[in-house]
Amino acid sequence: MSDIAKVSGKNFTLAQLGDLENLDQYGERMKGKLFLKDILNLTGMEVSMNKLPAGKQIPFYHKHKNDEELYIFIKGQGQFQIDGETLDVREGTVIRVAPEGSRIWRNNSNEDLYFIVIQAAQNSLNAWTATDGIIEEKPITWPE
Amino acid sequence: MSDIAKVSGKNFTLAQLGDLENLDQYGERMKGKLFLKDILNLTGMEVSMNKLPAGKQIPFYHKHKNDEELYIFIKGQGQFQIDGETLDVREGTVIRVAPEGSRIWRNNSNEDLYFIVIQAAQNSLNAWTATDGIIEEKPITWPE
Repeated sequence: MSDIAKVSGKNFTLAQLGDLENLDQYGERMKGKLFLKDILNLTGMEVSMNKLPAGKQIPFYHKHKNDEELYIFIKGQGQFQIDGETLDVREGTVIRVAPEGSRIWRNNSNEDLYFIVIQAAQNSLNAWTATDGIIEEKPITWPE
Repeated sequence: MSDIAKVSGKNFTLAQLGDLENLDQYGERMKGKLFLKDILNLTGMEVSMNKLPAGKQIPFYHKHKNDEELYIFIKGQGQFQIDGETLDVREGTVIRVAPEGSRIWRNNSNEDLYFIVIQAAQNSLNAWTATDGIIEEKPITWPE
């Protein structure tokens, strides 16, 4: 794996992955798939950044034991299959898949397909945004 | 909010948001920010798809009670501030922020900034990918 530039502080870790078109330089288990959990020390989700070249497909169906998955397609087009049902995907398609859903996808187009996959434990979120977020009333300052 | 085309099955919900450049048609609480939890019935994460126009900034700092956040920048450039530290962000920058981190961001460039924000309960993920995923050994079939 190429070196990834990182910056950390008390409450954050930042990594620079570079242009998304270069994602295929990454991938220990699968070329073009970069997992973020270990890079960023995530504790509530695993996330992968993906570039699937034109004409390629995932070589197996899979499901999960306990984790919900969200697929966010950000560029290109392809097909996604769940429990035998085939759906077209493209930039702006988002899909929630329950743990027991049998899933596979392919890039049957002539351009690279870019997407992000997030997994989180099913039913683990009890508060969010308006209920978990705290707006701070202090002046905003930015460096010159 | 514009109508969003959806398809659902036993184990999934799919939504077509359209080209990311049209994200500014969405946003009940903030223009250009579309939350996915209620659209997809997510149970382990809240996710927003974001387009922040050139020159715009978020009008307040915020932190969280219990949720970890991940920011994934997918196009454009800007700045992110955490606990008073300012960091440049661009396509391919990913940042994990702990709940107590005081955060804000802005688009100080001349082009639109696109990013995805995911929140999940801190320390909620106990298994992932290799330990939560189940590879299925069955033949792969796609429609003609």
